Amino acid sequence: MRITALAGGIGGSRFLRGLLRAEPDAEVTVIGNTADDITLHGLHVSPDLDTVMYTLGGGIDEAQGWGRAAETHTVAEELAEYGAEAPWFTLGDRDLATHLIRTRMLTAGYPLSAVTEALCDRWRPGVRLIPMTDDRVETHVVIGDDEGGEKAIHFQEWWVRLHAEAPARRIVLVGAEQAKPAPGVLDAIAGADVILLPPSNPVVSIGPILAVPGIRDAVRAASAPKVGLSPIIGGSPVRGMADAALTAIGVPTTAAGVAELFADLLDGWLVDTVDEAATQQVEAAGIRARAVPLWMTDPDTTAAMARAALDLAAEVRTT
Amino acid sequence: MRITALAGGIGGSRFLRGLLRAEPDAEVTVIGNTADDITLHGLHVSPDLDTVMYTLGGGIDEAQGWGRAAETHTVAEELAEYGAEAPWFTLGDRDLATHLIRTRMLTAGYPLSAVTEALCDRWRPGVRLIPMTDDRVETHVVIGDDEGGEKAIHFQEWWVRLHAEAPARRIVLVGAEQAKPAPGVLDAIAGADVILLPPSNPVVSIGPILAVPGIRDAVRAASAPKVGLSPIIGGSPVRGMADAALTAIGVPTTAAGVAELFADLLDGWLVDTVDEAATQQVEAAGIRARAVPLWMTDPDTTAAMARAALDLAAEVRTT
Repeated sequence: MRITALAGGIGGSRFLRGLLRAEPDAEVTVIGNTADDITLHGLHVSPDLDTVMYTLGGGIDEAQGWGRAAETHTVAEELAEYGAEAPWFTLGDRDLATHLIRTRMLTAGYPLSAVTEALCDRWRPGVRLIPMTDDRVETHVVIGDDEGGEKAIHFQEWWVRLHAEAPARRIVLVGAEQAKPAPGVLDAIAGADVILLPPSNPVVSIGPILAVPGIRDAVRAASAPKVGLSPIIGGSPVRGMADAALTAIGVPTTAAGVAELFADLLDGWLVDTVDEAATQQVEAAGIRARAVPLWMTDPDTTAAMARAALDLAAEVRTT
Repeated sequence: MRITALAGGIGGSRFLRGLLRAEPDAEVTVIGNTADDITLHGLHVSPDLDTVMYTLGGGIDEAQGWGRAAETHTVAEELAEYGAEAPWFTLGDRDLATHLIRTRMLTAGYPLSAVTEALCDRWRPGVRLIPMTDDRVETHVVIGDDEGGEKAIHFQEWWVRLHAEAPARRIVLVGAEQAKPAPGVLDAIAGADVILLPPSNPVVSIGPILAVPGIRDAVRAASAPKVGLSPIIGGSPVRGMADAALTAIGVPTTAAGVAELFADLLDGWLVDTVDEAATQQVEAAGIRARAVPLWMTDPDTTAAMARAALDLAAEVRTT
């Protein structure tokens, strides 16, 4: 079975691990979000790609959900001593090696997709990981400034430095209109048996992937059933601050609200059992909905979620 | 008193520390060798400048003589896991932060001299440290290859990876002919009250500095007395593998041999007490010579060496 998933960082990665446990023989392609990417200290950092790679490759800090296990922060301490930029974005020492390799290859002219493949040679994540695009797309968040005006800041500054507490007026995907899907992306969508939208942030993870011209249309046109899992349980994000991002685009922080954001392409949608009432609203939008436990508390539970998503895909395919 | 010194790495730095102890009120300008510089993992590494900066700024690994105290090597371990280049050149984590800052500033268009000044804002080495040039000069070593021919390798590969064991046929200073002295270099030479050549490697540390067009002439033309200290004691280098480098250029590994290498510009030369017999040979070349203890075993001994160099400078100035 060929499964193609669109994935952000922590939520997507944990789900993918459950998916590989549920369906170990599947040929899984992951289209990763790169709009969170940021250049720090001259290094190209791809947080979401790395979270997928580290999580599936056995290098993730399990408790934290991002970054490397057994991480140290010596370089960051030294950078701070020099008064370097962005001390709020801590780069771990182990993680930094990844960014050094990535930056060196990008500088040498390799596209991000080739770099990602090279990095995965070490991590062997068990999936084919492709960035959504080799072009620069950057999520910027427009917030109010001190003079009553507004300013756009990089997503990471809003998310990490400001903890998404500054109300987001708009979310702008810089470069998205000019971006092209990375090699392999459209083929992975067209050739999939199932397309999955894991419980990733719908606005700043799945959103940017679908914003790359051609990808949303390809998903919509694909013959495979498209099934997603709600990242909202009982009106709150499973983790992270997805509510702040949803509010910015005027979408209610509900399992049904997120489904409607993707109504043009979804065939099926899983909500958590506490949101069972939402299934009616989702089905009214023409999307098959089921309520199953969606807390990714451990690998078995997560595998069961993935199983439920594949079952729902099979169901919509045959009916 | 304005003192200008031409310095390589470990030997030069230790001597400079003694000099500052001997003459705390002196205004010391250090012209640093950059021909050992190497780009690794996309980072611009300036080993000699950093050794001066760390030694005088209190950050050096005292036992080793180079690199940072309390150093860790997490990034290097991770780079090795990726199969990255040059695993023989270990970059410590603390040290790496310096290279990140340097590389970022160079990429932004700052010349190395401005970058060095910025790095010294943190380290406050108590001297003005200027790279010999803002241009790229790289020491390459020509050795034999496996097919009976020869090949040129970067100095660091010869020194660090091959431990200078592959006989050097020639030493080539790539870019030296086109290089210009960095801003401030010629003024520091012309305006000095004393010019010192610390016991640095004469071939690959002092040699490249003097090979930048204009510097050797400026030293020769300067009104200040020029005094050097032999890096060779009893026919062996004080440390490092200067003998291998001297052999490559056909100069005997003796205190007198090195003095003759700089005979066109030296007014005075200190040899170690074990080399007292060499003073005659040096004086025959028109250079005032004295024999004093030259082992930099501790700061006081090193300060006494510096004192002896300044005394010899005063002596040649007045006679």
